[in-house]
Amino acid sequence: MKIVAVVGFSESGKTRLITRLIGELKRRGLRAYAVKRCSHGFSLDTEGKDTADFTKAGADGVAMVSPEGWAALSKSPVADVPALAGRLFPDADAILVEGGTAAAGLPRIEVLRAGLSEVLVSRPGDLLAVVADFPLPDGLMVPIFKPEGTAEICDLILSLEEGNMAEIKLEVDGREVNLNPFVRTFIERTVLGMVTSLSGIDPEPKNISLVIDRKDAAAKPR
Amino acid sequence: MKIVAVVGFSESGKTRLITRLIGELKRRGLRAYAVKRCSHGFSLDTEGKDTADFTKAGADGVAMVSPEGWAALSKSPVADVPALAGRLFPDADAILVEGGTAAAGLPRIEVLRAGLSEVLVSRPGDLLAVVADFPLPDGLMVPIFKPEGTAEICDLILSLEEGNMAEIKLEVDGREVNLNPFVRTFIERTVLGMVTSLSGIDPEPKNISLVIDRKDAAAKPR
Repeated sequence: MKIVAVVGFSESGKTRLITRLIGELKRRGLRAYAVKRCSHGFSLDTEGKDTADFTKAGADGVAMVSPEGWAALSKSPVADVPALAGRLFPDADAILVEGGTAAAGLPRIEVLRAGLSEVLVSRPGDLLAVVADFPLPDGLMVPIFKPEGTAEICDLILSLEEGNMAEIKLEVDGREVNLNPFVRTFIERTVLGMVTSLSGIDPEPKNISLVIDRKDAAAKPR
Repeated sequence: MKIVAVVGFSESGKTRLITRLIGELKRRGLRAYAVKRCSHGFSLDTEGKDTADFTKAGADGVAMVSPEGWAALSKSPVADVPALAGRLFPDADAILVEGGTAAAGLPRIEVLRAGLSEVLVSRPGDLLAVVADFPLPDGLMVPIFKPEGTAEICDLILSLEEGNMAEIKLEVDGREVNLNPFVRTFIERTVLGMVTSLSGIDPEPKNISLVIDRKDAAAKPR
């Protein structure tokens, strides 16, 4: 799963770029998702509006499930947009996040537009690429694309390394735990060994998800 | 996290019951979520409507993140409603699922209504309780409540055992793996031992979530 942020001033063309990238990803048969930061509220637009009753009653969130998919709304504050995106869309090949404040820690594509925003605001270390509709001065250390260079930008996103090591995400009581390379390898091999020794399990699984919920086990027995 | 299904005929009062239960759960300071099965489509109702552009471009899903929470829409088919609900709302104290087809494997509260539905359709083994606005014949093995008995129904939901053992959910390549009690205990203790040996970790964590993504690691190195 590749997650990339598209940042830039309002009206710089972020939404248009994401829209075109989604089209390109879909033409390539991939699963593409978009995440947008917005300052205003939103609601689920459904025919029955029962979900509105649930929300009015104080529900922290509601979800609708239909044969075509699902829709959901939650009042839980979002601390980590990439983590939320990965949880919502675990089958994604690519997730495009629009907006800078949501992009902390993500590789960024910054969109510049002549007459509106001609100077980069991202720190060089965070930049994956620049998209501009005017010639940029030499000396930038990242690839520069024209807004219509969708296929090339798409190639770049898909070429992003996810690291040769397996990605391991460990959360304890909702807090992510940083793991050094030794511990990562140790945990990966231990869990992989346990899991693949179970009958009927692919010896080279691509994804292992393990949740241990001890809420009640840790409390005194009833 | 308690997940319970509320089932019954259309117009039997399922939505009203869930609405009242949410109100009761919130009065008790708990996190309450609702999930509803619906046969028609839905969309995200946002001011900007950029998400509609993303969807039109073919996005498999979109999410909006605001300071108050998030909203999301996905075209991924839902195989397992309780699993989806747990992923969307991991901080829930209680999740109420309206509708029978979404309720496979969940304890059920069946709602009966005089003149509309007076005979139970749930299998006895799946029933947690019956809510009826008319006297039921003796001999039912589950608690019977009046529709206005919200507080008592709420007590029953919250008293649901989550088992003395930790709840362990293992998914390999998106498919849930059934674990026998020996394997559950073995995995729980092994992972607990590894995790709690890391510095700064609570020796009695309530929840451990571990995701190992080997998509790229398993492929040939680039």
